[in-house]
Amino acid sequence: MPPVSLWPDPDALGPITDLYELTMMAGYAASGMAEKRATFELFVRRLPPGRAYLVFAGLEQAVGDLLRLKFTEEQAGYLASLPAFAHVDPTWFEALPYLRFQGDIWSVPEGTVVFPGETLLRVEAPLAQAQWVETFLIASLNYPTLVASKAARIVEAAHGRSCVDFGTRRGHGPHAGFLAARAAYLAGFDGTSHVEASRLLGIPPVGTMAHAWVQSFETERAAFAAFARVFPENTTLLVDTYDTLEGVRHAAEIEPPVKGVRLDSGEVGALSKAARAILDAAGRRATKIFASGDLDEWKIGELVRVGAPVDAFGVGTELITSRDAPALSMVYKLVAIDGHGRVKLSPGKRTFPLAKQVYRRRDGQGRFAGDHVTRWDEKAEGEALLSQVVSEGQLVGELLTLAAIRERCRSQVSALPGVLRGPDPTGVYPISYSDVLESAAKTLGL
Amino acid sequence: MPPVSLWPDPDALGPITDLYELTMMAGYAASGMAEKRATFELFVRRLPPGRAYLVFAGLEQAVGDLLRLKFTEEQAGYLASLPAFAHVDPTWFEALPYLRFQGDIWSVPEGTVVFPGETLLRVEAPLAQAQWVETFLIASLNYPTLVASKAARIVEAAHGRSCVDFGTRRGHGPHAGFLAARAAYLAGFDGTSHVEASRLLGIPPVGTMAHAWVQSFETERAAFAAFARVFPENTTLLVDTYDTLEGVRHAAEIEPPVKGVRLDSGEVGALSKAARAILDAAGRRATKIFASGDLDEWKIGELVRVGAPVDAFGVGTELITSRDAPALSMVYKLVAIDGHGRVKLSPGKRTFPLAKQVYRRRDGQGRFAGDHVTRWDEKAEGEALLSQVVSEGQLVGELLTLAAIRERCRSQVSALPGVLRGPDPTGVYPISYSDVLESAAKTLGL
Repeated sequence: MPPVSLWPDPDALGPITDLYELTMMAGYAASGMAEKRATFELFVRRLPPGRAYLVFAGLEQAVGDLLRLKFTEEQAGYLASLPAFAHVDPTWFEALPYLRFQGDIWSVPEGTVVFPGETLLRVEAPLAQAQWVETFLIASLNYPTLVASKAARIVEAAHGRSCVDFGTRRGHGPHAGFLAARAAYLAGFDGTSHVEASRLLGIPPVGTMAHAWVQSFETERAAFAAFARVFPENTTLLVDTYDTLEGVRHAAEIEPPVKGVRLDSGEVGALSKAARAILDAAGRRATKIFASGDLDEWKIGELVRVGAPVDAFGVGTELITSRDAPALSMVYKLVAIDGHGRVKLSPGKRTFPLAKQVYRRRDGQGRFAGDHVTRWDEKAEGEALLSQVVSEGQLVGELLTLAAIRERCRSQVSALPGVLRGPDPTGVYPISYSDVLESAAKTLGL
Repeated sequence: MPPVSLWPDPDALGPITDLYELTMMAGYAASGMAEKRATFELFVRRLPPGRAYLVFAGLEQAVGDLLRLKFTEEQAGYLASLPAFAHVDPTWFEALPYLRFQGDIWSVPEGTVVFPGETLLRVEAPLAQAQWVETFLIASLNYPTLVASKAARIVEAAHGRSCVDFGTRRGHGPHAGFLAARAAYLAGFDGTSHVEASRLLGIPPVGTMAHAWVQSFETERAAFAAFARVFPENTTLLVDTYDTLEGVRHAAEIEPPVKGVRLDSGEVGALSKAARAILDAAGRRATKIFASGDLDEWKIGELVRVGAPVDAFGVGTELITSRDAPALSMVYKLVAIDGHGRVKLSPGKRTFPLAKQVYRRRDGQGRFAGDHVTRWDEKAEGEALLSQVVSEGQLVGELLTLAAIRERCRSQVSALPGVLRGPDPTGVYPISYSDVLESAAKTLGL
């Protein structure tokens, strides 16, 4: 048997979902309910500990994939073969390869700062279709939002110094790196080491050498000289393979002067100051100092605070796994059937009924002053965050470009109240719900 | 512009790597070193906090993908267009689409219990090829190993009760669910909710209904009855949409008796006892109780300890994100060039030189008693864990089937010393290094 490949065919993503979505779809069909108009909303229940805001991301890929979501005949045949489906009408399996998502989607734009409890995306579609896409939509939006939110914190901590994504190898599988590179870039990172992500997304690619390069030569000097010959305009030398400051001295000898040195271990604060002194004394004032190795927003913030002369930070594990908060409670809940509100009363998991809009108000300085969640058709003060992106299974207009998303994120984060910013925020952003929603909830027993 | 798809072509995975691997490859070529015989070893530096062992997983997909790793002409052209590569010989880019991995690989089998500091996989190949595959190999093995290690702990805590994977939506992107479903199953989980993973891997699929099913009907009773009509042999009813015990009573009314009820919120210990009493009083002794909702090895262990009558656990977020330990320090280090040992001396990151073998000894009861790491060609007592899986770019024999890996994992975990088992292990597994390795390290300054 050859090894099983687990890379899906992008034109057969239909069964990347939980089995219960498909049992429910078959059940809706058998109960004459598949065509009822359902409204589902996607939101985050709670912020991860220590966090004060999230950056919404992943919409472009989620929508692109959702619009071509389908089953092959083989995939439909697999379902038909399952004992659990033995009593399902055979025509249901036969129709499955023809199923497409033909509903409507409203969403906040990528790069928007968002908060728990407010609608981020709304699906209105025939009940079976809206149910089908639940797992895939959450799986596509949860992670990019997690990484963009982490990246925004890291960028804030770097205080204007450059940050680049080094996470590819630490992602949760070889696909996560694509999503992380994009999410980090839109949240203000300046580049990625991920070659294919850089090609597909137009993100500046970064990287020069690992320790193996230095170890492959008889001496560090020989390794540095050889690299500078092949990459004269892109010589950033990794200086910590043997003795870090000795490595900096070797780097300072290279002619013409190298672009940078990289510190990947040890006490970066002290080492960067010593390295800067060595480089400056050798007339290498233009040579940059690059730091990497288990950096996060707290360590970077501390390096900035003590004035470590680090020009750029490479962030890997902490970014791509969002290590302090690797999970996000993003959910997708039924809020109406044929326009009638629906709620769930499970302890700790209550949801407001009805399709909603989110209005964001600003104070006199342009800072975000609070969000107000209303029924979709109510009017309120401020910017309405949700707009339609898909109508009857077709994109409406253009999604934001990655450059526009990046600019939006920069401007959104800078409009946050000060108490929500920094690695250890102290405030909670105010969110209120309209009287119409409150009374609809009360009527339904919430 | 249509949305950019980030699903890679499985036959063009070559640039899922860090840029520095490619700059080094071009540099090795320019320095006449690309064909030197390099030995790289993959290992984990440290255990995550609170962990005592890891379960090695992901080899089948890693090797399958690695053997077809290649660049398209378009991908090679992208590299040629980068300013950093301006001084690289054009023939290097032209040759890139013809590059294949043609080296040798030794590995421990999947499902093996492993420890930090011991070689898990070794690549011997021309230097440029061995360098190329670094990022991809780590990205392919790090995450499955993380999830299998987490899953083994959860299975231990469940103490013979069934565990199933509900994680798909919380994975780090829509691909992670495939890898997690497989890793959980090989570590003893009994099923997955991930439909496509179940189809491709032959894992039993599980799932019946979400809250949306119940909310879609006018009453809970109507929802339950409708489901039981369509799935009479697979009726597990979610009972916590409105009032959990009322839901159990409604479930107990269904004829014929349903297979199970699922609790997804609240105090599962108390609720499961109350639910069991209701079901038993209604003559539903065969109806199982299924629990889900933010479960992990500690919560499951506690439910088992207090005798909660839960028959099976659905585990999502905690499993698929390995929430308490979402990152693993898996590395791939150069240990020899043309058979001559290489080391790195960076603080906290030292590596032993030379190709290695790991021998595992057992005590009189068959329990693992300690591992001994030697130079590859030394002999020692115990089971030699590494064997050749790839020779000159071709698979050697057959990889273990998923069923065999699952059986190996079960038997490996049960052979662990008691102090390493359970959610809060107290012991450290003994690992020693041979005199030959110690003296080779000393010679190189380690």
